[in-house]
Amino acid sequence: MDAQSQARESSPPPQPGGAAQSGGPPSSQARPLDIDQLCIDTIRTLSIDAVQKANSGHPGAPMALAPVAYTLWRDVLRYDPDDAHWPNRDRFVLSNGHASMLLYSLLHLAGVKDAKDKRRLAVTLDDIKAFRQVDSKCPGHPEYGITTGVETTTGPLGQGCGNSVGLAMAGKWLAAHFNTPDATLFDYDVYTFCGDGDMMEGVASEAASVAGHLMLGNLCWIYDSNRITIEGHTDLAFSDNVAARFLAYGWNVERVGDANDTGRFAEALKAFKGAEVPTLIIVDSVIGYGAPHKQDTASAHGEALGEEEVRLAKRAYGWPEDAHFLVPDGVPEHFQAGVGARGRALKAEWDILFKTYAEKHPDQAETLERLLKGELPVGWDKDLPSFPADAKGVATRESGAKAINAVARNYPWMVGGAADLSPSTKTNLTFDGAGSFEAEKYGGRNLHFGIREHAMGSICNGLTLSGLRAYGSTFLIFSDYMKPPMRLSALMEIPAIWVFTHDSIGLGEDGPTHQPVEQLLSLRSVPGMITLRPADANEVVEAWRVIGGLRHQPASLVLTRQAVPTLDRAVYAPASGVAKGAYVLADAKPGSTPEVILIGTGSEVSLCVEVFETLKADGVAARVVSMPSWELFEQQDQAYRDSVLPPAVKARVSVEMASAMGWDRYTGADGAVIGMHSFGSSAPIKDLMKKFGFSPDKVLAAARDQIKKHGSKATESAK
Amino acid sequence: MDAQSQARESSPPPQPGGAAQSGGPPSSQARPLDIDQLCIDTIRTLSIDAVQKANSGHPGAPMALAPVAYTLWRDVLRYDPDDAHWPNRDRFVLSNGHASMLLYSLLHLAGVKDAKDKRRLAVTLDDIKAFRQVDSKCPGHPEYGITTGVETTTGPLGQGCGNSVGLAMAGKWLAAHFNTPDATLFDYDVYTFCGDGDMMEGVASEAASVAGHLMLGNLCWIYDSNRITIEGHTDLAFSDNVAARFLAYGWNVERVGDANDTGRFAEALKAFKGAEVPTLIIVDSVIGYGAPHKQDTASAHGEALGEEEVRLAKRAYGWPEDAHFLVPDGVPEHFQAGVGARGRALKAEWDILFKTYAEKHPDQAETLERLLKGELPVGWDKDLPSFPADAKGVATRESGAKAINAVARNYPWMVGGAADLSPSTKTNLTFDGAGSFEAEKYGGRNLHFGIREHAMGSICNGLTLSGLRAYGSTFLIFSDYMKPPMRLSALMEIPAIWVFTHDSIGLGEDGPTHQPVEQLLSLRSVPGMITLRPADANEVVEAWRVIGGLRHQPASLVLTRQAVPTLDRAVYAPASGVAKGAYVLADAKPGSTPEVILIGTGSEVSLCVEVFETLKADGVAARVVSMPSWELFEQQDQAYRDSVLPPAVKARVSVEMASAMGWDRYTGADGAVIGMHSFGSSAPIKDLMKKFGFSPDKVLAAARDQIKKHGSKATESAK
Repeated sequence: MDAQSQARESSPPPQPGGAAQSGGPPSSQARPLDIDQLCIDTIRTLSIDAVQKANSGHPGAPMALAPVAYTLWRDVLRYDPDDAHWPNRDRFVLSNGHASMLLYSLLHLAGVKDAKDKRRLAVTLDDIKAFRQVDSKCPGHPEYGITTGVETTTGPLGQGCGNSVGLAMAGKWLAAHFNTPDATLFDYDVYTFCGDGDMMEGVASEAASVAGHLMLGNLCWIYDSNRITIEGHTDLAFSDNVAARFLAYGWNVERVGDANDTGRFAEALKAFKGAEVPTLIIVDSVIGYGAPHKQDTASAHGEALGEEEVRLAKRAYGWPEDAHFLVPDGVPEHFQAGVGARGRALKAEWDILFKTYAEKHPDQAETLERLLKGELPVGWDKDLPSFPADAKGVATRESGAKAINAVARNYPWMVGGAADLSPSTKTNLTFDGAGSFEAEKYGGRNLHFGIREHAMGSICNGLTLSGLRAYGSTFLIFSDYMKPPMRLSALMEIPAIWVFTHDSIGLGEDGPTHQPVEQLLSLRSVPGMITLRPADANEVVEAWRVIGGLRHQPASLVLTRQAVPTLDRAVYAPASGVAKGAYVLADAKPGSTPEVILIGTGSEVSLCVEVFETLKADGVAARVVSMPSWELFEQQDQAYRDSVLPPAVKARVSVEMASAMGWDRYTGADGAVIGMHSFGSSAPIKDLMKKFGFSPDKVLAAARDQIKKHGSKATESAK
Repeated sequence: MDAQSQARESSPPPQPGGAAQSGGPPSSQARPLDIDQLCIDTIRTLSIDAVQKANSGHPGAPMALAPVAYTLWRDVLRYDPDDAHWPNRDRFVLSNGHASMLLYSLLHLAGVKDAKDKRRLAVTLDDIKAFRQVDSKCPGHPEYGITTGVETTTGPLGQGCGNSVGLAMAGKWLAAHFNTPDATLFDYDVYTFCGDGDMMEGVASEAASVAGHLMLGNLCWIYDSNRITIEGHTDLAFSDNVAARFLAYGWNVERVGDANDTGRFAEALKAFKGAEVPTLIIVDSVIGYGAPHKQDTASAHGEALGEEEVRLAKRAYGWPEDAHFLVPDGVPEHFQAGVGARGRALKAEWDILFKTYAEKHPDQAETLERLLKGELPVGWDKDLPSFPADAKGVATRESGAKAINAVARNYPWMVGGAADLSPSTKTNLTFDGAGSFEAEKYGGRNLHFGIREHAMGSICNGLTLSGLRAYGSTFLIFSDYMKPPMRLSALMEIPAIWVFTHDSIGLGEDGPTHQPVEQLLSLRSVPGMITLRPADANEVVEAWRVIGGLRHQPASLVLTRQAVPTLDRAVYAPASGVAKGAYVLADAKPGSTPEVILIGTGSEVSLCVEVFETLKADGVAARVVSMPSWELFEQQDQAYRDSVLPPAVKARVSVEMASAMGWDRYTGADGAVIGMHSFGSSAPIKDLMKKFGFSPDKVLAAARDQIKKHGSKATESAK
C-alpha cells in the first residue's frame, strides 16, 4: 500500500448540515457542502477521535485551530510533503505542543512522507489510532526525531516560541552566507502556533524581545487566544494587552477576530509576508469549538470529550456521528492539491537552482551540504592548540577562549554567544570576519542574547535544529535559568553546546548567589548530555575535541574563572585521556596497586596533584585520576574503568568544589568525598578555599585517613 | 561607641567645587556647597572606595543611582532606622543586587540599627571597609539574614523584581485581613530598583504581568536605564520600548530624563503614590557617573575603577581626592533627619495604633504577632487526617489535597496556588472563606499565578519574607522553570513550600517532555532544602506535618498523578517514620539481620512491599525501607541510620522512578539501583512500568540476585 492509498483509506463523505462556518460556536443550522470546511472538520474529528480512543490528550486546541492550521498549510506553507527535510521549507512549530493531534492530522492529510522510508506516510491513520501508545509515531507531545515533520519537540510552554526565533535566525544566517544575487537558496519563513501559556511564560517574552530587536521579518507567531486556561478563564491571571506588548517588542501585530474566519486570517498572513519585522497574529478562538457542553471551558483543554460529547460535536459539524477516524474521499486530495502541489513545484525549482549553484560555487555547495547533513567540517580541529607547562597557569575560561576560537575558525557554521557575559565567559569569536549577528548584518557569528539565559537556550536549540553548530554561554550558576531548553536538547539528541564559566566558589567575592554548588550535578543528571569539567588548558583542548565531534548529544563545558596550573604533560599523562571521561593522570608506582586514589575534576585536579607529590615524597604509592566527565567514563568498558579505579583499592578521596552528592559511586561507601555541603560565601578565593576545606592539608589528611582505614584490606585484596 | 557616633566617625566636609548637579556627566564647573549633593556624593564615594579597596565589585550603578536612592530614602521611604523590622515599613528591594554598595551606603548613612544588637549599626564604616571579605556584613550581593535592612537576597537578575511583587501582594493581603475602619495597620509601599538585566529576564516580565493584573498600586519599580550592559551598549541586544511594554502589562509609567534631576524624580514618586496600579519609573542615568574615562561604558559596571580613576571621579564631585571612606560631618545627620525622623514618628504612631488595636481585637493582634514572628499557629496540624488501608488507594496528589486543606484551615496565613495547574496539582484550598486573591479581593488565599512558574517561585519568596506561609505548585518537570527562586529560598533559609505533582514516568501519556527524571535529584541537591516523596496517603500526612513545622528551611513535596495503595499500618510500621527521612516499613524477621533490604520512595514503596511479601512467602528475611527524604535521613544520628540500613547488610536494592544518580550512597557500590537511565516515553502507565523495568518481577530478580551476590558475606558479617 503506498502512502497515497494509505491516506485515502476510509469512506464516504459525511452528510453535511451542521456547523456554522464562522462566528461563535456552531449551532445546528444547515450548511452547504464545502470541501474546505470538510478538510477543517476532518482535522477536528481526527483529533477528537484520537484523544477519545487514547482516553488521554488535548482535543480543545485542535478543534479551535483547525481552520487556521488548514489555511496556513493548504494555501501558504511552502512545504514539500515528499521531502520534509527540504532545506528551504517553511518551518511550522507547534509551541502549544499539547495540541499535538492538530499537527499529526495535518501531517497525515498533507501526505507527508516518512523521511526514513518514503514509501510510508510520516503519520498513517493507524499511527493516529495509536496516539499516545507505546512507541507510537504520535506521542502525547510532538517529538523531534520520532515523527517526520515535527521540527522541534514541544510541550513545555514557551519553548517552541524560543526555538522558532532560532529557526528564523538560522534562516537569515543561511541566506546571508549562501544566497547569491542570482540564487536565493534561503528565504523560508517560520510559523509558530502558540497559546496563552506561551504568552505568559517568560522564555517566550525574552525570545520575542530578541526577535523584535533582530527584526526577524521571516518569523510569524500565531497566537490562539481562547481566553481559557486550566484553572479557568484568563481573567483569573492574565490581562496583558498582548498586542501592545508585542508592538513594544518591535513586532507587527495582526488581529483575526474569529478563528473560523479563514479569509481574514489569509489577509493577516499577507500582512506578515509584507512586514520587515516579526509578526504576531492574534486569533480569537473558541476552545473545543463545536462540543456543545465543553466548548469555551477549561474541560475541553486536557481530557477526552467523552463518547456523548464526541457525538454531539460531530453532529454540530454535520459529521456522521458513528464514524471514527473518518477521512472523507477528496479531503487528502484537496489538501495535497494545495500544500503538495505548491511545495513540490518549489522544491523542484530549488533543486534546479541548487544544481546550478553547485556548479558555480562547488565549495559553498559542499559546505552547505555538510552543514545540512550535520556532518563536521574537514579539519575542524586542526588548529586546536597545545599549552606548555605553566605553574601559574591560566583560567580554563581563558584557555577555553583559545580553544573555541581555534575550533570555530575551521567550523564555518559554528555560531554562538553569551547572555551578556562574553567578556567574562570569553566565548567571543575574535578572528577576522567573525563579526556580530545583528539586525542588518545577519551573517555574523557572534550572537548577543542579552540578559536572557532561558531564551538563549531555546534559541540555540532552534539554531542547532537548523544545522548550525550553536553554543550558548553564561556563568554556571545561571544554567539554572536555562535548564528546560538544555533538557530538550538532550531529549532531541541534538548537538547544542553549553559553555559555563565561573564554575565554583572559586569565583570568589560575588558570593553564594553566584557560586554554583549543585549545578554541576544537575547537568550530569540530564540523560544523554555530556558534561565536561577540564582540569587545565590542555584538558580544555581535549574537551573541545570531544564536544566538536558530537553529532547527536548536547554537551556542557564547565570552566573556571580563576587560574589553574597548566600541568606538565611530560611528567603526567597526556590530556587525551579526557575522551574516556577519566584517566590516570599520575601514578607514584606505575604497575603496582596504588595505596590511595585521589580523584579530582577541574580546578581541583591540581590540588590532587600537589597532595600526590607530597605523598610520593613520603613514599606513598598514590594515584591521581582526573575525571572531567562522568558520562564519558560510564561509557567505557568495565576493564578500562577497573584499570582507572581498581575495585581492590578502597582508599579513595574525591575532591570537587561542588555538591558531594553522587560521588559515592566512585569513592565507594567508605571513601572520602571532599565537596560542598552548603552554599558558598562572599570572600576572596584564598579565604574560601580555607573556609570550605579545599586545601592541600585537608586533602592530604583525608588521603592518609583513607590509607589507614583501608590499608590492610587493600593490600589483602590486591594479593 | 554607639551607633550614632560610629556613623559620625571621620572628618571635615570636602572642599566643594566640581560636579554639575544634573544633566550629563559632570564637568569641572564650580558648585555651591549643598548638603543634599554632599549626601549623594558620600553614597557615591563610599561605594567607589569600598569596591576599590576590595578590588572587586560594581561601582557604576551606585554612582549613577545615588541621587535617586538618596531622594527616595531621605524624602519618601517610611522606614524606622531603629526598627528595621517594623511591620508597616516601606520595603526597599535592590533587584540589581550587584549595586550592593549602594544599599550598604544607604543603610550606613541612615543609621539603621542591627536587628540583633541595636547598640550596633547594621552596617558600620568598618563593615563597608570589609566589603566582600570573609564573614562581612557587606557581602558581594545583598544577603537576607546577613545584613539588617536587606529585605531579600538579590543578584540573580529578575529575582528582586519577582520578590517585590510578592512583598506587595503580602501588603495587600495583610491590609485585607488586619486593617479595620479605624486602624490602618498596613499600607506600606514596595520600591524596587532594577536595571536592564531585570528588564530583559523573563522572570521579571512574568512578575510584571502578575502585578499589573492584580493592580498592585503599592508597587513601584525604579528602572535604571543606563543603556550599558556587560557586552557593551544595549543596542546590541535590547530595543524594547519598555514604557509601552509596561503600559501593556497595565502599569502606570513615569519617566525621569536624568538621574540627577531629583526634583523630577520626586514628582514621579508622587505620581506613583496617586496611582491605583503599579508604577514603573524609568530613570535615564549614566553608569559610573563622574568617572571621566569609564562613565557611560561597560568597564564601569563590574570592576574597581582603579586608583587614578577614583581620584578623577572624586575630583569631578569636588571631593577631597585623598580621602577614603569619607563621611563628612552633617551628612548622616541630614540623611537621618529625613528618613529617621519621619520613620520614627510613623513607627511611634503605629505602635500606639497597634496597642489600641490589640485591646479591641486581641485575637487578631495575637495572630498577627505570631505571623510576623514566623511562629506556627497553635493547633495547625490538629485536623490532619489519617487514611484507612486501601489496596486500590489514591494518588498522593489527592491525599495531598486533603492534607493541605487540613493544614491551611488551621494556618490562617497560609496562602498559595499553582502555575495554572491547581485542578491537576490539587492544591486549591476549598474550605469556606478560602477564596481567591484577586485585584479587588486581596484577602483570598488561593493565588493564581498563571502559566508563570518562575514568577511563582519568586513571588512565593516575597510572600514568605513577609511572614505569610506561601506555597507554589506545578508539575515536577516544571520545577526546572523555577529553580532559581527555589535555590534562593534555601539560601535565605525561609520556609517556602513547593508542591510538585506528576512526579515520574507514572504520569503516563504526556510523555518525556512532561516526565521528570532528573528533577528529584535536582531538588535534593539544593543545600538546606527538605525534599519529601511520600509513599502513600498517610506518608503524605506525615510529610505535611514535617513541612508545616519548618521555620527556616524550604521544602519540596513530590506527589504522584497515579493512585498508590494506602498501606495497612496495622501490618506495616506507622507513617510517623517519615519525620526521620527513612524508616523500616516492613521486616520479615524483626530482630534478625535482614537478608536483603529493599529501599523505595513514593510510588515505588508499594512495589517494594509487593516483592517483600513474595520473598517473605518464600521464607526470605527481607526488609522494606521507605525513604521519603534523603535530607531528613542524613540529619539522623549514625545509630539510627545504621538501625535502618545495617552496614553489615550489603544486599540492597533501591527502587525509584527517577535518575539512579546518588543512590549508590544507600545501596553501596555493589547494591542494585533500579532507576531511570534515560528519558521516559509517551504511553499508558502500565506499559511504561514494563518498558522501564519497574515491575515486581524485575525488583524480585534484583533482590534475589543481591542475596546471591552478598548472601554469605552478609551472614558472615552479622555473626
